[in-house]
Parts: sequence; structure tokens; C-alpha cells
Amino acid sequence: MSALPFSAPQSAASIDGAAGGAATSGFVSPDPDYAAKVQDSFNRQAAMTLIGATLTRLAPGSCEVSLPYRADLTQQHGFIHGGIVGMIGDSACGYAGFSMMPPGASVLTVEYKINMLSPGQGERLIARGKVLKAGKSLVITQCEVFAVQNGAEKLVAVMQQTLMVMHSRSDGAHDQAAQAQQQQ
Amino acid sequence: MSALPFSAPQSAASIDGAAGGAATSGFVSPDPDYAAKVQDSFNRQAAMTLIGATLTRLAPGSCEVSLPYRADLTQQHGFIHGGIVGMIGDSACGYAGFSMMPPGASVLTVEYKINMLSPGQGERLIARGKVLKAGKSLVITQCEVFAVQNGAEKLVAVMQQTLMVMHSRSDGAHDQAAQAQQQQ
Amino acid sequence: MSALPFSAPQSAASIDGAAGGAATSGFVSPDPDYAAKVQDSFNRQAAMTLIGATLTRLAPGSCEVSLPYRADLTQQHGFIHGGIVGMIGDSACGYAGFSMMPPGASVLTVEYKINMLSPGQGERLIARGKVLKAGKSLVITQCEVFAVQNGAEKLVAVMQQTLMVMHSRSDGAHDQAAQAQQQQ
Amino acid sequence: MSALPFSAPQSAASIDGAAGGAATSGFVSPDPDYAAKVQDSFNRQAAMTLIGATLTRLAPGSCEVSLPYRADLTQQHGFIHGGIVGMIGDSACGYAGFSMMPPGASVLTVEYKINMLSPGQGERLIARGKVLKAGKSLVITQCEVFAVQNGAEKLVAVMQQTLMVMHSRSDGAHDQAAQAQQQQ
Repeated sequence: MSALPFSAPQSAASIDGAAGGAATSGFVSPDPDYAAKVQDSFNRQAAMTLIGATLTRLAPGSCEVSLPYRADLTQQHGFIHGGIVGMIGDSACGYAGFSMMPPGASVLTVEYKINMLSPGQGERLIARGKVLKAGKSLVITQCEVFAVQNGAEKLVAVMQQTLMVMHSRSDGAHDQAAQAQQQQ
Repeated sequence: MSALPFSAPQSAASIDGAAGGAATSGFVSPDPDYAAKVQDSFNRQAAMTLIGATLTRLAPGSCEVSLPYRADLTQQHGFIHGGIVGMIGDSACGYAGFSMMPPGASVLTVEYKINMLSPGQGERLIARGKVLKAGKSLVITQCEVFAVQNGAEKLVAVMQQTLMVMHSRSDGAHDQAAQAQQQQ
Repeated sequence: MSALPFSAPQSAASIDGAAGGAATSGFVSPDPDYAAKVQDSFNRQAAMTLIGATLTRLAPGSCEVSLPYRADLTQQHGFIHGGIVGMIGDSACGYAGFSMMPPGASVLTVEYKINMLSPGQGERLIARGKVLKAGKSLVITQCEVFAVQNGAEKLVAVMQQTLMVMHSRSDGAHDQAAQAQQQQ
Repeated sequence: MSALPFSAPQSAASIDGAAGGAATSGFVSPDPDYAAKVQDSFNRQAAMTLIGATLTRLAPGSCEVSLPYRADLTQQHGFIHGGIVGMIGDSACGYAGFSMMPPGASVLTVEYKINMLSPGQGERLIARGKVLKAGKSLVITQCEVFAVQNGAEKLVAVMQQTLMVMHSRSDGAHDQAAQAQQQQ
């Protein structure tokens, strides 16, 4: 677990500290291996590799995804494409939610909604997702996406998302399509 | 204009025909050069090139974006990443809307909401966006995203989107950030 | 069942006919008593009585709710309040979805998103909800709300909604709160 | 202004204090009469009177609407109807946004999206809206809705909303429909 690029559980307090503290968030993961399973799942998201996004922080119920600016990620005006802003928001929320799911379950995005507040420009984007409610079947999350420019953070987008807990469907299983169809 | 990969205005009836007919949609673009400006703008979306999406149909108020399946576009279960489904939906809706904006204006995504209905799997995804209302300041659009597998189309996602008309802001202008900030 | 104000199953074809035909929609309810259970549930929605909304059409996977204009339903400009437009949209979608749920299940709104296209003015509003996908756990719906003025219909709002199927929770059960909490 | 049921500007610090402090929110209204205009507009929302909702707090960029439980506001399970939860969320967000609009402008809801987290039960609901970005044309807001039961608050819903600033359209003007149509 020392190879994880994000804070492992023992150092997660620093994340929680930034976001309000473990005592404040009140989230305790039902999966003792949540950090490893989230990182493993993220690593298998080829689309995150394609755009250069990485998982930079994780704690029970919260997750941060960072995306350095690249010219090939832009829309017609030279800003990061709104769809790519949505991609990292979807992942940050999804893994915040996955961290609160029990062992043996996998995660599926039901829907998300994103408001763009400012153009996505700067050195990098940072998406911070957090769980609002972790239910048995559904997990509701929110995300803020910031653009970092000259060291200052600016809010560029906000998202609300609904996730589904797919029980008894290991995240690494191969026949996920049939499973997703069946449960959803 | 013969180089455009999508239907030019004179053949747009075929698109409209598929979607309900020009008489049905009732949209007439206020910009006689809408097809060229949309294609030009799409070509400048580096993010569309990155993922391999192309503009395959266009008519006043409707737009289709196609995305062949690639392994590097997937999430952890091997389906097209939900964020990428959102990307092509955002573009299909955005260019459907842009086709109905007056000359000299550019387009900005205010927000979108997407529901995932089924896993994004198959040979390709097709996003079909259409305008519901083209107002002076705002354009409201909807999109359906289909997965094509063995020649059959299956609905995998639906989107609602709000666009802003940025008047007197040429889509190709360089200082778009300041402009976006100012108008939004 | 003869007391039902909307089309009973045997005449539901007229509804389907308007919306595209039973063959087109392809929905067959898993509950032979869907019409009675939907009407019964609607009748228990005191909020619908408060605003004067009625269920005017029903078929498997589609539902129409009508709302005559009243001065006490308005916002500050004299149009029907956007929140009330959302209320009838939520109900039309919710009962379209409920009609496709199995016997013994009840329905819960997970989320909805609504775009306002035009002011809600005229003699009445009509919300037409339809099911896009009826899954085992979740049902995804869409709705259009029209204002009827001088006999003409105008689209005033569009909605996307996610519903949850609460299995083994009779819609009329009393201890729904605990149940909702537990399942959600 | 002493008749206003909510905190007038001079005492607004108590609201801001609860929400994070004026220094934190950083909002200064461009309209010195924002409190009077918001209350006046709220008073003209007949739909708020119908359901018994009142404006209980206001500060630049934030607004609180309270709704005592009433049996005639419920859905089929005896909870406050999700559409009514949306109504007070829409108003709380809308007036948070209106407080940040310049004199002479009026406010229009473009769209909102709401996630239901828990059943709306208890003695009252409280919707707290806040502005995320107050742009020249659009204002983006968020809202949390809490149920108060035995003195404890529980989060029951979260909303994201987009508002439009209708410049040179007094909120009390009579011919709002034509104006809304024209600008939107």
C-alpha cells in the first residue's frame, strides 16, 4: 500500500483536516481495504490515463482527482473541455462513494449534473468529491472542481451525482455488462 | 464546404428526415453559414480529436457526434467511461445549439445533466442532440446517446443541457476567458 | 375501477396512440392492477389535492397530470410557480414509473432535474411523463410540461427523473419512513 | 423595513454568522434595498402562501425559507411531497440569487436539479440557499433542505440551480410574460 500515490488511511486525517475533519465528516468506511480497492479501480480506468488524471487524495467519503492542463484536452476556446471537467468530477464523486461501499460491491454512476461557473484554465484542475449520504442501495455525492492558476484556486464547476451500489459484484469482475443490466 | 464530413445544408433534409423532418422541427438557422462555423469550431475542440469523436450529421437545431469504441476510453469495467459519454453528449447538444445562434456569437455550456441507462459498450456510441428552445440569451437542448452493437442501437444515456449565447464574441476569438467571465 | 378518471387498461391504447402507440413504447406492466394502484396512490397525495392536480391519462410507462390555472399557484409575476411545475412533473414521471413496477413495490423519487422553457401561463398545465428504462432497482423517466392557452399547447418545461423501486414495501404501508431509510 | 419578518441588513450578520460570516461569503449586494425587494417579491408569490412557507432569514447571497409540516402537503406515504421540497428549494435559491442582482432587474429560474436524501418528515422543513456565482447574466446557486424533528436537523435534499438576471425588468412589472419570452 506504500505505493499508493494518495494518502493511505493512517494519513487520511490530513485530507479530512482540509475538508473539515474526520469528526466532522463522520464517515467510517465499511471496507477496511477501501484505499487499495479504490486505487486499484482507478488504475483500471483507462480513460483517466488517457487524459492524465490522477487520484491525489482519498479518505472515507471523500476523494480528490487532479488533472494537469494539456492542450489536447481543450474545447474550441482553449479551455479544458466541459465534458472533461465532468469526467474528473464523475470520477472524484464516484470514488468518494466507492470508498463507502462494503467489500465485494462495485459502483455504477446513475446520473450526474454539473454547472460550469468559470472557464477551466490554469496549470491544473482539482476535483474534490464527497459523500452526502451513503445508503444501502444508493450513494449521493457532491463535487467541486477548482482551477489552479499561479497557486490560487478558483471554483470552476459544481456537481451533484447519484451512484448505485452493485452488491456482490466485485469491481474487477469481467462480465460486468450483464451484471449491470440485471441489477440496474 | 464540400470537405465537410457531415451533411451540408442542401442535404440536411436526410438528417431532419431521420429526426422528424424540417417541417416538424421548425428550425431555421439565423446564420446562413452555420454548417461551416459548427464544423470549424468542432475541429478546434482538441478534446474531441483526443477521444476520436467526429461530427457525423448536422442540421439547424440538431447535431450528431459519433465515437468509435477504443480500449483507452473505458472505465474500470471495460465500458466507455460515463464522463466520455457526457463529453460527446455535451458536444452534440452544444453544436445543435450553436447551429441556431446568430453570426458573430459563440457558445458556452452553462450546465448539463445526464442519466446513464445502460453500459456504454459496442462498436461505437452515437450522441444525437437537438434544440428544445433557442432563446435570445439561452438555448435549451436534449440529447440521446446510443450504443451501436452488431448494427442495433440501444439507448445508453439521456441529457438535458443549458447553453449561453455569447453575443459579439466570435467563436474563434483568442481572449475568450475574459469574455466568458464578463458575460456569464 | 369504473370510477377512475383516467383511461382504464382496456382503453389505454388511446393514450399510447397519442404518445406513439403501444407497439412503439413496448411497455407491458408487470402489475395487472397497475391502473388501480396508481390512481389509489395519486389519491393519497394530499399535495396534489391542495394544488388541484388530477391524473388525466395513464398507460403502462406513461402518465399525464393536469393542473388548471389558479391565482394561488403563482410566483411573483403571476405565472404558475416553477416549483409547482416541478411538482406535477415529479408526479407524472413518478406514476409513469410506478405503473411499471411489480405488485407489492412502492416508488420513491431519487432525484429530478427540470428546465423551464417558457412562463407557465394559460388555462391549464399538462405534464406528460414517460418511462425511458424500467430496471429492477431504478426507473428512469422523462417529462414534458405544456401550457394550454386558447386551445394551443406550448412546451414550458422538460424534466429528467430517477425513481427507486422499493420492493416488498406496499405503497399504502404506514411505516414508510423507516422503510425508505433502510432501503435507500 | 421593521415589518420584515427576516433579519434586516443591519442584523444580517447573525445569518452570515451561521452560514460562515460575511467575510467568508464575501458577498456585497449591488442593491442597497435588496432586503425590501426580496421580501416584497416573496410576498407576491401566492404559491408560498398556499403552502405556508415563509422567508425566515436573508443576507446578501443567502436566503432561508421555512415550511411547517401540514398534512395537506404530503405525498402518498405521509411525507412532505418531493415537489414541495423542490418548491421551497427553488424559492430559497431564487431569492438568495435575487439579493445579488442590481436594482431594476428581476429573476427567472432557468433550471434546477434536486436529490432527495431522506423522507421529508418532522415539525418543519428549512431550505437554505446560497449563491455560488453571481454573474452579469446568470447566477448559480445551491441549496440544502433540512427536516427539523424534535429539535434536530437532518439533511433531506440538496439542489443546484441556475437563475437568469432579467435586466431592466422590474420584478413587479405586469407584462412579465412577454419580457421573459423576449429575454430568455
